[in-house]
Amino acid sequence: MTKGNINVSVENIFPLIKKFLYSDHEIFLRELISNATDATLKLKHLTSIGEAKVEYGNPQIEVKIDKKGKKLHIIDQGIGMTAEEVEKYINQVAFSGAEEFLDKYKDAAKDSGIIGHFGLGFYSAFMVANKVEIITKSYKDEPAAHWTCDGSPEFTLEPAEKTERGTEIILHITEDDKEFLEESRIRELLVKYNKFMPVPIKFGTKEINDPDFTPKTTTDKDGKETTEPHKKITVDNIINNPNPAWTKQPTDLKDEDYNNFYRELYPMQFEEPLFHIHLNVDYPFNLTGILYFPKMTNDLNIQRDKIQLYQNQVFVTDNVEGIVPEFLTMLRGVIDSPDIPLNVSRSYLQADGAVKKISSYITRKVADKLKSLFNNNREDFEKKWDDIKIVIEYGMLSEEKFFEKADAFALYPTVDGKYYTYDELYNAIKAKQTDKDDKLVILYASDTDAQHSYIETAKAKGYEVLLLDSPIVSHLMQKLEGSKENISFARVDADHIDNLIKKDDTKISKLSEDEKKQLDELLKEVIPSEKFMVQLETMDSDAAPFMITQPEFMRRMKEMQQTGGGGMFGMGNMPEMYNLVVNTNSELVGEILNTKTKKKQERLINQSLDLARLSQGLLKGEELTNFIKRSYDMIK
Amino acid sequence: MTKGNINVSVENIFPLIKKFLYSDHEIFLRELISNATDATLKLKHLTSIGEAKVEYGNPQIEVKIDKKGKKLHIIDQGIGMTAEEVEKYINQVAFSGAEEFLDKYKDAAKDSGIIGHFGLGFYSAFMVANKVEIITKSYKDEPAAHWTCDGSPEFTLEPAEKTERGTEIILHITEDDKEFLEESRIRELLVKYNKFMPVPIKFGTKEINDPDFTPKTTTDKDGKETTEPHKKITVDNIINNPNPAWTKQPTDLKDEDYNNFYRELYPMQFEEPLFHIHLNVDYPFNLTGILYFPKMTNDLNIQRDKIQLYQNQVFVTDNVEGIVPEFLTMLRGVIDSPDIPLNVSRSYLQADGAVKKISSYITRKVADKLKSLFNNNREDFEKKWDDIKIVIEYGMLSEEKFFEKADAFALYPTVDGKYYTYDELYNAIKAKQTDKDDKLVILYASDTDAQHSYIETAKAKGYEVLLLDSPIVSHLMQKLEGSKENISFARVDADHIDNLIKKDDTKISKLSEDEKKQLDELLKEVIPSEKFMVQLETMDSDAAPFMITQPEFMRRMKEMQQTGGGGMFGMGNMPEMYNLVVNTNSELVGEILNTKTKKKQERLINQSLDLARLSQGLLKGEELTNFIKRSYDMIK
Repeated sequence: MTKGNINVSVENIFPLIKKFLYSDHEIFLRELISNATDATLKLKHLTSIGEAKVEYGNPQIEVKIDKKGKKLHIIDQGIGMTAEEVEKYINQVAFSGAEEFLDKYKDAAKDSGIIGHFGLGFYSAFMVANKVEIITKSYKDEPAAHWTCDGSPEFTLEPAEKTERGTEIILHITEDDKEFLEESRIRELLVKYNKFMPVPIKFGTKEINDPDFTPKTTTDKDGKETTEPHKKITVDNIINNPNPAWTKQPTDLKDEDYNNFYRELYPMQFEEPLFHIHLNVDYPFNLTGILYFPKMTNDLNIQRDKIQLYQNQVFVTDNVEGIVPEFLTMLRGVIDSPDIPLNVSRSYLQADGAVKKISSYITRKVADKLKSLFNNNREDFEKKWDDIKIVIEYGMLSEEKFFEKADAFALYPTVDGKYYTYDELYNAIKAKQTDKDDKLVILYASDTDAQHSYIETAKAKGYEVLLLDSPIVSHLMQKLEGSKENISFARVDADHIDNLIKKDDTKISKLSEDEKKQLDELLKEVIPSEKFMVQLETMDSDAAPFMITQPEFMRRMKEMQQTGGGGMFGMGNMPEMYNLVVNTNSELVGEILNTKTKKKQERLINQSLDLARLSQGLLKGEELTNFIKRSYDMIK
Repeated sequence: MTKGNINVSVENIFPLIKKFLYSDHEIFLRELISNATDATLKLKHLTSIGEAKVEYGNPQIEVKIDKKGKKLHIIDQGIGMTAEEVEKYINQVAFSGAEEFLDKYKDAAKDSGIIGHFGLGFYSAFMVANKVEIITKSYKDEPAAHWTCDGSPEFTLEPAEKTERGTEIILHITEDDKEFLEESRIRELLVKYNKFMPVPIKFGTKEINDPDFTPKTTTDKDGKETTEPHKKITVDNIINNPNPAWTKQPTDLKDEDYNNFYRELYPMQFEEPLFHIHLNVDYPFNLTGILYFPKMTNDLNIQRDKIQLYQNQVFVTDNVEGIVPEFLTMLRGVIDSPDIPLNVSRSYLQADGAVKKISSYITRKVADKLKSLFNNNREDFEKKWDDIKIVIEYGMLSEEKFFEKADAFALYPTVDGKYYTYDELYNAIKAKQTDKDDKLVILYASDTDAQHSYIETAKAKGYEVLLLDSPIVSHLMQKLEGSKENISFARVDADHIDNLIKKDDTKISKLSEDEKKQLDELLKEVIPSEKFMVQLETMDSDAAPFMITQPEFMRRMKEMQQTGGGGMFGMGNMPEMYNLVVNTNSELVGEILNTKTKKKQERLINQSLDLARLSQGLLKGEELTNFIKRSYDMIK
């Protein structure tokens, strides 16, 4: 038996690391600036514990383009490296300096925000450079070192002249990657990845008015005033905000600060967010962040992917699928957590225990915030309801825990602009809207325009009509009917109102049974049975003579089918089903019955049917054109 | 100056390779089966060129679960390895055997379908196993070898008993990954990644009726017939189709074969595809595949990601963004190309020269296919137009090359079901629909129901009305107006028909200028100016008395804004603009003018306005309810 060690051959693995470990060339800059930040924060830590006897000062990171020399410089004023350390950290690929540092200084360093993980980041430089130089001077009293490598595994290392502490990385950018010598491209990357990193990043300079200079105004002999030009000074152009709002304590921030940060995140967004949720937890995982509720429309296909994920203030991705519960991906904002495993698939993420906890923590925080907003300023909450309901309703459908909590703040608005919680609604309508079988019938409309006449009829009876118009509300009603006792939802046009909420009283019919039979036969001759089921009803004499209804069950199943899932298979393709309710007590119906000629009867029935169809939006195309022509003639 | 070599330390890089190189644990099986396939195809190649003096036979790959032993076995009957080769290929990470093999046998091996690339695939086994064994016997006359490694860089290598040629990989599955000991999970993975791999893959056995056995039927004394049970035999359960349609020559396939393969790809899809495009190119890149046009709705948010990408029959992904032009991602099917770089970002892909060529090749092939379908069977093409137009129109908008080619087959249907190409349309309408300024006006409707009366009016003049109802058609019209000479599109309700296509003839007015002025003042008193601009027109006396129109430009800009891009900034939020066209020659308008009391005049105007609004779908809610009530009263 042979024993041995698996051998990783540099010649073979090096191109792999250079080209394939990172899928995107542009991230080299993020990696190098992360390293520079680490080097700076390490120094801060060492000076704070007295290990490094130097002045920490106000170090910054500088990014410089040398377009002519085809070079990109990244310069920090951090801890620096001795020649020995270069050998150790750079020449040994995957020997992660940050990890060793964290091991050594453990708990104390935990909050210092050090990013490095595998120590491979530096090598991503070779994705865009055919030669990389490091000129570095340690905070220790040792000579500076100059390391050079052309992308082959061979390097050179020699002493350097550098006297200031810190590290300068020089990338000799390849012809293929010359985009990284463009100022606009580098600026774009710095803004994308480093906008909130904790050490100031200088990229060029800018001119500002000298704050120490006040321009003098002189008056000439004609009394004309002249003000001398403002003195300009050139200052560093700092590209990042090293102290973004989410890293601060909620108690230190005002609403205005949150709104300002929102604008910092989404400069192109003109609308203010409705409210925010500050996330801040240490245990059992570390997570900070701010989520914002923007105004939302009723469109489920709203733009998601607006939440940015950071790790220690370094931008990672704007795809938080699997980390944030799906219904909350419609929100905006920032999440920062070093505890989310990266470079893993979404399906793996979703199965990960820590991530599951993060996801349910976020759900809980959002529910708590909504509850407190509701409790503290209900009026304001009601005003915002229409803009946030889609998220809440979606959450109620998709997360059982959220459904339970939402009972306290989910609102059910009426067509008249009143807002009920479920319990309030229950108490308000229970006396009037309980039917003879003891079932509470909740009436609703989905469109106040289209269902206007039906709504009026219900309101005339003293019933409340909810306005439930979001695209997923049929699923929510289904869920509520299943979880609450003995209730059912019915849209106002599902039947005539006395059938929707059946009471024990019976109406007196103006027509005899014989007359009804006669009417029924007459109607069935004229009205196409494949389109409408004729249904004779004894109603109030002033109720509409003809009325078209659409049974609740079939309609709702179709709707559920259309908005995905639920409903019965294939129901979405069923034809629309309508009933024609005929009010046998109405004057017009009596007239139809008593009209002498068949032709006149037919005309009366057809015109009435057209009006009923018009009321349900069913009169269209040629039939509508003909109806209008006939009506113009009738006016004359 | 020091010189040296960068050193990759195994202890540090090994966990990285094991855990982070692949984002998804499940792909270990794909990698190992790819290796097994390579080993088999290498043997095939060597026997075919006489290098290996053994019988190739009918080798297969077997996947076996040992649930009790917590092991997963992958066994091939391929080329095998000697102990020396194990040392070389396995113990040297990233020494890709496949690459060396391809180098050695170059062109001859090019078509043999060998997959391996970096030689790292094998190590993905350690993502799910805490111990991996290889038992392998080379086709060469040398003893078998047995390699074992527990995930540390240390391995053992000893002789083995194995006598059959080939390699067996044994994974000792970790507790965390025990899902990979479930038959259903492994079956799922085999179907997902290996459904079309070129070597048969056995996974368990199944019982089938013995084809060599015919059950006997006997008749008993009562005349009752009894048939003996069919004899069952157990056969290998082969999970893949090693010869999928796209690897064959188009000439060897019938329409039925293409439809069968579609069902193989999408077993849950009941509808047949409309047609297919067989892709097959060797130079300057290698690509095969079959694309299908499914029936498509007018919804741009249709499910995409239905095209599967393969490399040498190994499934890679169903996200072909960047490879297939965006407008074609609505299609379905398979693309197989070894020339598409993987593990790179989408933005990198889109910039890649080879991928650009692939993308434009696919566009060209699709355009050519559409053209030949149109030329060979126009009737059939017209029938399919409604189901494919969204793809073609989207392509015309997004790819200039496709726009040019589409001129030959893009269709413009009329409301009466006629289909014109652009040139045909031009010739058909140019005589009648050229206005006095020599501009050709193309009339269209977006909804035959909603615009019925306007369509009829246009048709009565002998004009053709197109039916253009896809959501992006306003963008396409804009583009056509820009690229064709002196034409413009106008929706039939954009103005009254004599204004849409202005001719030189003038109508005689029944009203004097004084009467017109009087009418204008009267109308402006009654009709709210913020809703309707009153526009008096001298029209045919039998044309509608009142008519509501919506100017083309504003409406189209709004539509373009709503379907993303185009249009002028902020236009989407502008209120709807309507004109009220009043036909001064109509009988009713004369009557209005001559009616004595103001109150009666107002009633006539309002009822006429309501009818005009009805015709444009603008009468809603309470106004509609009131109109209907009034109309019921008028019937009585």
